[in-house]
Amino acid sequence: MKKSLGAKTLLFPTPVLAVGSYDKEGRPNVMTAAWAGICCSQPPCVAVSLRKATYSYANIVLRNAFTISIPSQEQWRKADFFGLASGSLMDKFAKAGLTPVRGAFVDAPYVEEFPLALECRLLQTIELGLHTQFVGEILDVKADPSILSDSGLVDIQKLKPLVFTPDTQAYHGIGEFIGRAFTSSTPG
Amino acid sequence: MKKSLGAKTLLFPTPVLAVGSYDKEGRPNVMTAAWAGICCSQPPCVAVSLRKATYSYANIVLRNAFTISIPSQEQWRKADFFGLASGSLMDKFAKAGLTPVRGAFVDAPYVEEFPLALECRLLQTIELGLHTQFVGEILDVKADPSILSDSGLVDIQKLKPLVFTPDTQAYHGIGEFIGRAFTSSTPG
Repeated sequence: MKKSLGAKTLLFPTPVLAVGSYDKEGRPNVMTAAWAGICCSQPPCVAVSLRKATYSYANIVLRNAFTISIPSQEQWRKADFFGLASGSLMDKFAKAGLTPVRGAFVDAPYVEEFPLALECRLLQTIELGLHTQFVGEILDVKADPSILSDSGLVDIQKLKPLVFTPDTQAYHGIGEFIGRAFTSSTPG
Repeated sequence: MKKSLGAKTLLFPTPVLAVGSYDKEGRPNVMTAAWAGICCSQPPCVAVSLRKATYSYANIVLRNAFTISIPSQEQWRKADFFGLASGSLMDKFAKAGLTPVRGAFVDAPYVEEFPLALECRLLQTIELGLHTQFVGEILDVKADPSILSDSGLVDIQKLKPLVFTPDTQAYHGIGEFIGRAFTSSTPG
């Protein structure tokens, strides 16, 4: 018998993503977001939700573009900092000693030192309440060669992305390999 | 210098979720989805994307409701099976030996044996291309007492959710605790 916990934003795993944008003066900004996920295979799209009060919100609407950079677990303090500080008050890239790189496909910067980056063109803006969901078409994914397998695919054990827990507000790493997907023609 | 991988649906971590629904005859169905994430804090909302071709798609549109049940890593074969079989051809709950439980708040069933379940009322339906995104308001979260900490919060190390890797198509577990969120007033 399950216990009711009420109406809460609980989903596991939840990602830890650094959303990159330029402001109206062309200054790079980055903020951490966890309310996000892939939302379409064709065209390839990712959804990320931000509050209107964030500095990034106006940037994304203005430029019709954003990036998503995925930090590795040893970079967790920088990612956590990006979720606390506001780009309206400081240059968060400079403060963290990280490098903004202009996207090749969109008018937004990604984090050079974070191992994986997605360049996204804003496709849809959906008002949901406290958060606005931005749906971005993924125009390119860029990876550090260090996180790729011999076959050129991203190796999650090398990427070591963070997992956020919404209720206990903590970060965890990625664990062991469990099994291959799409192999269970019977339920086991 | 990063390497371009092209326009791909790559995000880490990606969840493994069992989406529950009733068909027009009231038969329970469940399918696995990975294109999903929390999308709003107030009202609490989750987004999950399905192809129109799935049996679940019509069910959710008809009932304006769905559930999300989160399997634990030892249940990965059942979750994988739910992503391969079609509810139009069989009763997947019965085939997997799992129990559909009618939601207390919405007209959709969740998986009794999976440790966490969300009851969702369909709020918005967003056409994106191959996938349609369903935004559901989370009306209740239900948890097995076995995955709760002493303070009544979900312990991710007890839940042990699966992490899906979109390119290598594999499942991984959750790793060690890395740090507390919202503690880094400086970037470390």
